[in-house]
Amino acid sequence: MRRILFTLPGNEGLATAIATAMDAEQGALSLRHFPDGESYVRILSDVKGKQAIVVCTLHRPDEKLLPLMYLCRALKDLGATTITLVAPYLSYMRQDKAFQPGEAVTSAYFAALLSSFTDGLVTIDPHLHRRSTLQEIYTVPCEVLHASSLISAWIKKHVKEPVLIGPDSESEQWVSVVAHDADAPFTVLEKTRLGDADVRVTVPHVERYADRTPVLVDDIISTARTMIETVGHLKAMGLKAPWCIGTHGVFAGRAYEDLLAAGAARVITCNTIPHSSNAIDVSSLIVPALEHLLKEKHLPITDPTQP
Amino acid sequence: MRRILFTLPGNEGLATAIATAMDAEQGALSLRHFPDGESYVRILSDVKGKQAIVVCTLHRPDEKLLPLMYLCRALKDLGATTITLVAPYLSYMRQDKAFQPGEAVTSAYFAALLSSFTDGLVTIDPHLHRRSTLQEIYTVPCEVLHASSLISAWIKKHVKEPVLIGPDSESEQWVSVVAHDADAPFTVLEKTRLGDADVRVTVPHVERYADRTPVLVDDIISTARTMIETVGHLKAMGLKAPWCIGTHGVFAGRAYEDLLAAGAARVITCNTIPHSSNAIDVSSLIVPALEHLLKEKHLPITDPTQP
Repeated sequence: MRRILFTLPGNEGLATAIATAMDAEQGALSLRHFPDGESYVRILSDVKGKQAIVVCTLHRPDEKLLPLMYLCRALKDLGATTITLVAPYLSYMRQDKAFQPGEAVTSAYFAALLSSFTDGLVTIDPHLHRRSTLQEIYTVPCEVLHASSLISAWIKKHVKEPVLIGPDSESEQWVSVVAHDADAPFTVLEKTRLGDADVRVTVPHVERYADRTPVLVDDIISTARTMIETVGHLKAMGLKAPWCIGTHGVFAGRAYEDLLAAGAARVITCNTIPHSSNAIDVSSLIVPALEHLLKEKHLPITDPTQP
Repeated sequence: MRRILFTLPGNEGLATAIATAMDAEQGALSLRHFPDGESYVRILSDVKGKQAIVVCTLHRPDEKLLPLMYLCRALKDLGATTITLVAPYLSYMRQDKAFQPGEAVTSAYFAALLSSFTDGLVTIDPHLHRRSTLQEIYTVPCEVLHASSLISAWIKKHVKEPVLIGPDSESEQWVSVVAHDADAPFTVLEKTRLGDADVRVTVPHVERYADRTPVLVDDIISTARTMIETVGHLKAMGLKAPWCIGTHGVFAGRAYEDLLAAGAARVITCNTIPHSSNAIDVSSLIVPALEHLLKEKHLPITDPTQP
């Protein structure tokens, strides 16, 4: 089965890496907005009888949804056998229940919509919280990947004498895994409540890490509030300027600039969302998962009227 | 059956007029964006067992689609019996076929998507071109309304000694109807081709209209290119500064400012899209259609497991 890969604007680097590794054709698209804001999509390559792969990371999802849907539906109408969406960052994962009465459970509605025009999904570290798998809400087969091994390898190669630091006890498990694979020590901040509005934050055995480079790791850097706070605590305790690593650099508003201004020595992200901080390439993670999805789970829909 | 009306931001004036005329409850919503751009929707009113009406005009549709879908799906999940969408301006009506191979037929895809989370649609002067009715693409019952009678009445009341002017022979039928109901004469521009790049535009019997106020009428003013050109021709022929009236003031970019700068005396629109040029209220058109849809065609979905 021949494969053809399309990319929405902003994902070109990752898409080219995937297409090259899979030896897939890169499809040509014309995609623009009319003066009134409506989207125009034209597929310039022949897709009939091919497995189509669409690369579209989903930060700032509201403005992307219609162009993405138009592309996927047109691919199917033009004879592509299957549409597999590679969304390295998956949006609308937070509102997974009605925390207050009347709230729209957007993660379920978004999942149903994406499932309605794709045949499969590949994504990295989605923010699974109260749900255990994407398949609770996505009706198409999903491949969920984890960037922690790539992050560990990057730290091992680029950071001298690191110490991994988790912002709180909840982060301990995840930080310990990244630290283990990076052959680095780790610790988590300890919070001691001294009064109603008085919390003392300390690094246990801080003296051990005086010569090490603190590394903060999180799955999503969005407003960066927690990381900025943690950077402040480390500075106050006299540690070196920390490096901050995120799988997904969403960077709401001026979060990136604020994190650097707070004292981060470097801010590093995976290329799941295009940004100047991208340094860790996830294509090696995506390609085998995509191959697996296309070969094993992801049978082309056959037309029962055809022999 | 009790009715409750919700409005998305920007449609408050029209929504209040509709709710008042129908004696419908106005529902309360909390609608905002998270810092990362995702939408949050919370319904603050009790909707169980009620017919829900959602007012959301659809210019600049890409950014509106997800919040609108979340609202409609949450209304249904919270027990509203039916969801009727009032979209005075309906988007994605232009791309009704693939003009070139590979083009996404966005009008059909958009219609299928809207039909998937609503039970009925009320709209005004949709840009039906190659399609004869909305029902070719919308699977929910639609009420299609026409603003021409309101425009005629407005002209009759507000413009002294008008002459309606169509930009070309194609517009003759529509302009003649508006003119007839406004008790006004009408004419259309005549184009004479003198050479490959030389077209002479004239108003037949222009001397008859020297003391009249030219009125240009169109269904959609988007880039306003045609209207701006026509205003230029009328000026060159020594007619008075024309009034420009549109059902839908989409006004892409600086179209409104450009139209005034070109010499339009006034620019007037219906309140189908909120804009400072709104002067013609369409609520009187919408209310009976909505009543009809809710009463006649638009049966609440009944649960077959309940007696």
